[in-house]
Amino acid sequence: MRDLSKDRSLLAINSATLKPWTLEQLVEGCARAGITAIAPWRDIVQAAGIEKAGKMIRAAGLSVSCYCRAGLFPAADEAGRRVALDDNRRAVDEAAAIGARSLVMIAGGLPKGSKDLPGAHRQVHDGLASLLPYARENGVPLAIEPLHPMYTADRACVNTLAHANDLCDQLGEGVGLAVDAYHVWWDPDLPRQIARAGKRILTYHVCDWLVPTRDLLLDRGMPGDGVIDLRTIRAMVEATGYNGPIDVEIFSAQNWWKREPNEVLRICLERHQTVV
Amino acid sequence: MRDLSKDRSLLAINSATLKPWTLEQLVEGCARAGITAIAPWRDIVQAAGIEKAGKMIRAAGLSVSCYCRAGLFPAADEAGRRVALDDNRRAVDEAAAIGARSLVMIAGGLPKGSKDLPGAHRQVHDGLASLLPYARENGVPLAIEPLHPMYTADRACVNTLAHANDLCDQLGEGVGLAVDAYHVWWDPDLPRQIARAGKRILTYHVCDWLVPTRDLLLDRGMPGDGVIDLRTIRAMVEATGYNGPIDVEIFSAQNWWKREPNEVLRICLERHQTVV
Repeated sequence: MRDLSKDRSLLAINSATLKPWTLEQLVEGCARAGITAIAPWRDIVQAAGIEKAGKMIRAAGLSVSCYCRAGLFPAADEAGRRVALDDNRRAVDEAAAIGARSLVMIAGGLPKGSKDLPGAHRQVHDGLASLLPYARENGVPLAIEPLHPMYTADRACVNTLAHANDLCDQLGEGVGLAVDAYHVWWDPDLPRQIARAGKRILTYHVCDWLVPTRDLLLDRGMPGDGVIDLRTIRAMVEATGYNGPIDVEIFSAQNWWKREPNEVLRICLERHQTVV
Repeated sequence: MRDLSKDRSLLAINSATLKPWTLEQLVEGCARAGITAIAPWRDIVQAAGIEKAGKMIRAAGLSVSCYCRAGLFPAADEAGRRVALDDNRRAVDEAAAIGARSLVMIAGGLPKGSKDLPGAHRQVHDGLASLLPYARENGVPLAIEPLHPMYTADRACVNTLAHANDLCDQLGEGVGLAVDAYHVWWDPDLPRQIARAGKRILTYHVCDWLVPTRDLLLDRGMPGDGVIDLRTIRAMVEATGYNGPIDVEIFSAQNWWKREPNEVLRICLERHQTVV
């Protein structure tokens, strides 16, 4: 296992972790802390302006471990699918403009009023297939991120690494995986599916599963505060040859988002060195 | 598909759905509504007294579709595992005394302070294996119920039908499955795993996944109010030859548990005939 305690370049800070900050604050804060990679969400990049965002990131010497996030393919009709595809193309443009190593893709849930899960699965496959030529042209790898099965209905109907690996098999070059320990830690098939993923892993994310978890979306924990065996999962990921940064992404409306961001950053660094 | 609109014997009412009722009220209420099967939880059976409970249920001519619930095997030490095994033996006794078709088993989560998920999986296997001879002697089939992956940490670390089917393969005669649509609907592997289950399915449960879901445990929906394609899953289950009752089990602290139980019962019957 690579030694995080000696190499800050192995840590990336996801902008969702430091929710109160703008891109400018994130770039300055990370540079100040000696962190060399960030994973911004689209909201703060768009707010800064795409071109300015790219310049700001490059000027600070930061790399972009991944760009969060696009996808959300299933829609009730053709017009809805077209809107999603157009938005995904813009996300590819943005990812290219800021030099992201990959664009994270979440599937999207059931269209409003639908109970047709196999139909939603087909729409995800077809949406990725439609976007892929454009992503390849622009040199932006698509990182399919399976989300926890509690998000199937309203956020993402690809919920296991097995399913995401199947999509990679079907779609070929230019598609890979985003593995987030929070979403996959429970899966008894995890060791096998990470080994199967091999070189497909484009980005690796961590946070922790709290007991109790008080909200399905916004109650994720700082690494070390929950029950996920992060060291073991990281060892599986690194055994595939993954050597990119490890991205701390914490949605936490009632705790971490309320704290002073520099303090959160300091704790992320500390936990990265002790438990991730 | 069997015709629920003509045959109330295909409906079982789980006592968790009518939380305010005692066993006596449940038995009387169901008999009054022409329902012929119940699935009681241990709390109300123990409160009534085991022997009296059996007599009450038999006198009303009700069958017991399953008995909820036991299991919860993983513990931090040998003493804890012994406590769990003793309690599971009592649950077998109780199930036999009330003539339950099966005893529903949930796995249990991680022992307090543990992050060792494979270790918890092994404890579940070993716990079931230890209990099994006693269950066989007493003629009580054990129905392993995989719970939704959002319960891995604190309630059940068997979360897919694939895992539960594997346990059945390993443990043999006397062990089967409890399939609850709420826990398994999201799984892309569902059709294959239900087909693989075949005659192992001992009880089938329904409720619905609400969007949004406001609580991980206590915000389940009345069939028809959510996004689960219940008719399709039921068809898969019945294609295996399952012809027992369909058990309505709804945890709903903020809605159904606050309503008048006879009214809830009436709506369960109606939805059973229209959407299950």
